Amino acid sequence: MTDFASWMKAQGARTEAALEAALPNSNTVPHTLHEAMRYAVLGGGKRVRPLLVHAAGEVAGADPAACDAAASAVEMIHAYSLVHDDMPCMDDDDLRRGRPTVHKAYDEATALLVGDALQTQAFIVLAQAGAIAAEARLKLVAELALASGSVGMAGGQAIDLQNVGKAMSRDALEAMHRMKTGALLRASVRMGALCGEIDAGGLAALDRYAAAVGLAFQVVDDILDVTADTATLGKTAGKDAAHDKPTYVSLMGLDAARELAAGLRTTAHEALGGFGARATRLAELADLIVLRTH
Amino acid sequence: MTDFASWMKAQGARTEAALEAALPNSNTVPHTLHEAMRYAVLGGGKRVRPLLVHAAGEVAGADPAACDAAASAVEMIHAYSLVHDDMPCMDDDDLRRGRPTVHKAYDEATALLVGDALQTQAFIVLAQAGAIAAEARLKLVAELALASGSVGMAGGQAIDLQNVGKAMSRDALEAMHRMKTGALLRASVRMGALCGEIDAGGLAALDRYAAAVGLAFQVVDDILDVTADTATLGKTAGKDAAHDKPTYVSLMGLDAARELAAGLRTTAHEALGGFGARATRLAELADLIVLRTH
Repeated sequence: MTDFASWMKAQGARTEAALEAALPNSNTVPHTLHEAMRYAVLGGGKRVRPLLVHAAGEVAGADPAACDAAASAVEMIHAYSLVHDDMPCMDDDDLRRGRPTVHKAYDEATALLVGDALQTQAFIVLAQAGAIAAEARLKLVAELALASGSVGMAGGQAIDLQNVGKAMSRDALEAMHRMKTGALLRASVRMGALCGEIDAGGLAALDRYAAAVGLAFQVVDDILDVTADTATLGKTAGKDAAHDKPTYVSLMGLDAARELAAGLRTTAHEALGGFGARATRLAELADLIVLRTH
Repeated sequence: MTDFASWMKAQGARTEAALEAALPNSNTVPHTLHEAMRYAVLGGGKRVRPLLVHAAGEVAGADPAACDAAASAVEMIHAYSLVHDDMPCMDDDDLRRGRPTVHKAYDEATALLVGDALQTQAFIVLAQAGAIAAEARLKLVAELALASGSVGMAGGQAIDLQNVGKAMSRDALEAMHRMKTGALLRASVRMGALCGEIDAGGLAALDRYAAAVGLAFQVVDDILDVTADTATLGKTAGKDAAHDKPTYVSLMGLDAARELAAGLRTTAHEALGGFGARATRLAELADLIVLRTH
């Protein structure tokens, strides 16, 4: 088995190539829309969700080509959500992945359409994924749609907006993040596994892993918003505090938030116990997510 | 066979009930998002796309319950596009179906999320449509996604925006409308047929019908924008001229546009020739689309 750094590098290149191929070419009409869609997706991002898809695929013995389709679809949904979240009527952010946001690089109408079309493209990619059997493809469509819709990612975003400037209990904050970021991270893990063979017990264990990692991801995000600078983050630091958004740090303090993240890392590792070496990459990704500095 | 008016009434009630059931209840969290999604979809609209789905389903002997899922999904995509098109960064319209647009009744951030989540809901509905076999469901997902994405509806919208205030040839205008409105109308017809049994020749004939009806729909829209008043339309009349948008009327004059619509109606009828009485509803819908006054 190669070391984690080599695996990460290989997967990163693989994901970039898969996304490149799954996005319409900018020579295709309408040129500007396609160019802006590629700008929004390519050349940046940590690709956490594609890495989770491939790592979960390894647990289930999935064909990496099948995982490419699932990974590209999940990442397009993530990218669409960032484009829309950055717009003036939402978070109004000028910087993303160290570059101007789409509505800054282009304009608001283009950003709106880029997000809309990226969401659609995710479902095009899944529907046309020839490496996956029809039954499984349909399951992937359902997983991705449920995770990203009004009872998943978009719903979490709506709850987030409603609570700006309001006090939130830890339970309410957790419920919000379970929808806003957790649902798509969980879908990444489940979709990778569904590209291969997995029984109900295995899927339940992966769900426990994904729930812990999803929550840890958000807790660490909240910590980094306070402790990292804008150059390191590639997006505007301190914006949660500036927007008066409830976070784990504002709710429980920095030290307790760090302890929570460490505990979730342990929970994630424990959930993988039954898989043995097949789950090495998932375990390493849990470490990466908790220990990252940006 | 019941008369067309009775069929329309029954299909309208059927579509309303199907949409009602396919949208998340407003008692489900997040309440406001779900309430706004229902506001955007229910209680208005001519339901042209659901009618086309069911009428094409009759040609192919489809189960009406299967058509309900396809019809709901297409109408949700249509509704999402209206919510986003009405936003200030796009057409900036205050009135839709005789009521305040979503960003006026709620706010811009909610309108953005309502559109996003309605698009997702369309794919949820198709993925979960138990009345349709898995292979066919997957075909429906592909049809709907391709018709509504960057080489379909969203792409047409992008081209439309780029051409505000510019001269457009009739070919360019037609190509734009084929994407902006034609693709989803064509998908409605194809998806209805795919809910039943149809051979390649039958599907090609329906494509010719849908191309003519899709174009006629837009030509009549352009005519009504000039000839009808706001109260009759339920949306702001004269807005194309006010926004300096190229239309069939501005390009070829009112009389020639009317002649074009009449010719397209004939073309649509001719395409249905081989189906006999099974295509009665499609023929009547072509008449309705060309002869409508709002």
